[in-house]
Amino acid sequence: MNPGAHDDVSQSVKEHPALRWRAGAVRHEPDRLAVEEPLEIRLGGRRFTLTMRTPGHDEELAAGFLLSEGFIKSREELGEVLRVRGTRGAPEPNAIDVILNVPATGLRERLKRNFVISSSCGVCGKTSIEAIERRVAPIEDDLRISASAILRMPGIMREAQEVFSATGGLHAAALFLLPADGPAGGSDGIGARSLIVLREDVGRHNAVDKVIGYALMQSMLPPGRAAMMVSGRVSFEIVQKVASGGIPILCAVSAPSSLAVELAEELGVTLVGFLREPNFNVYSRPERIVV
Amino acid sequence: MNPGAHDDVSQSVKEHPALRWRAGAVRHEPDRLAVEEPLEIRLGGRRFTLTMRTPGHDEELAAGFLLSEGFIKSREELGEVLRVRGTRGAPEPNAIDVILNVPATGLRERLKRNFVISSSCGVCGKTSIEAIERRVAPIEDDLRISASAILRMPGIMREAQEVFSATGGLHAAALFLLPADGPAGGSDGIGARSLIVLREDVGRHNAVDKVIGYALMQSMLPPGRAAMMVSGRVSFEIVQKVASGGIPILCAVSAPSSLAVELAEELGVTLVGFLREPNFNVYSRPERIVV
Repeated sequence: MNPGAHDDVSQSVKEHPALRWRAGAVRHEPDRLAVEEPLEIRLGGRRFTLTMRTPGHDEELAAGFLLSEGFIKSREELGEVLRVRGTRGAPEPNAIDVILNVPATGLRERLKRNFVISSSCGVCGKTSIEAIERRVAPIEDDLRISASAILRMPGIMREAQEVFSATGGLHAAALFLLPADGPAGGSDGIGARSLIVLREDVGRHNAVDKVIGYALMQSMLPPGRAAMMVSGRVSFEIVQKVASGGIPILCAVSAPSSLAVELAEELGVTLVGFLREPNFNVYSRPERIVV
Repeated sequence: MNPGAHDDVSQSVKEHPALRWRAGAVRHEPDRLAVEEPLEIRLGGRRFTLTMRTPGHDEELAAGFLLSEGFIKSREELGEVLRVRGTRGAPEPNAIDVILNVPATGLRERLKRNFVISSSCGVCGKTSIEAIERRVAPIEDDLRISASAILRMPGIMREAQEVFSATGGLHAAALFLLPADGPAGGSDGIGARSLIVLREDVGRHNAVDKVIGYALMQSMLPPGRAAMMVSGRVSFEIVQKVASGGIPILCAVSAPSSLAVELAEELGVTLVGFLREPNFNVYSRPERIVV
């Protein structure tokens, strides 16, 4: 697997004693649990936010969060991402500091705008969508992907996950780059090497932020011919994050919410749900998918 | 079904056009989506928080959130829960106002304490658990439940869900009251009538808050001989909410996180995961479960 792949299983999974009840028989056997710990994200040394996440790839999580929530717009604005050091210089396992490369006035504007978004009175889904539209440009391209390429993604993602962990407690997000030769190309245009990065986390939004953070730190955003695949369901928040990364296609194993579909339509994202071979549903921008 | 049951399907589910790909054949057919909309919770007319949720049972959501996050401790402290009215007196679909029955100084203390919890520097899972322990008393009782009663819960919950919706996009939480005659009682001690309330939401934490809010408004908390069943996974936050409601048993269809298990142990909650007939795992306080 490539550099975007997993590399720190030990932080993400922890054994815990469990009593296993199997059709009436009981045995004591440890189970592997997904680790959940808080992460503090600081901006220039000052606490900015706290999120519960699975340890590992914390720098990517911080970077992805700042981009996908609209606080930065590019790799350049990200500046430096640093592990916070404790009193004796030892790295703090649960704190990341980001030195943004954004002028103070610009940052104040963005913080204020995000505050206004989240405090608009008598708010409704439509208001929320309009607020996102004010900062995220709709994706307009002539990208085409074959239905068979879409159907291959869950299998490729699952295989990559099996290499990694077996807790059953982690959400996954994966970024696929689609070949330039189009859907009619050689081998349905997609294979294991199309998977650029896979991240897992107890929080689905964190898994997505880690993937976006990886792509941002590799200066790959917007990725052009790309698709994000997520385990589980799709909320409004996930579509917002994927569109902020300029990713035109979002596929999920399970159902989207009503607001997720509406936002995907507005932002030009092709939203695929219930993707389980040999079936899937398309909820927005179906024109990108061809037979 | 009893009064705690569903009563407003129309708000929670919405049809949307979808393109369905079925083993190569394509057809256009609307799909039922789980509705996601923001809810603003106010305290005494002032904005307190905003959450993305599935409309319906908003009063319960507000009440449950305030209890499960430690802002109130009892039905009495909840005071009044009101639908916000717009300029012409029409009810606002996405705003609830709560008039607490807590002295201003007491409330300031609690707001300050929660702020301190969420801003403790160099935070880690252990710190988070200690902060919760400072306000939530561990559950100590001699409640016993049979393994067969536990194995019946998912089926009862699923049947109740099937009556309601089929979006595949909603998380569910259900509260079961266990009969006083103990696990050896007549019919394994549990049946469809043991299900007191079932709530569904795009957010798992909201489904749990709605159930707790229902029980609080019915003056049923702490419920004593009771178990909460949730679809999907169990995070730290879910255990915190269930323990705040004084519910001694928490069962989930899928995996718990490491911090969820640690908090459940500390707060005396029996945590059951991967509950899928005929199997389940017990991660904490297994002594409550008997053959």
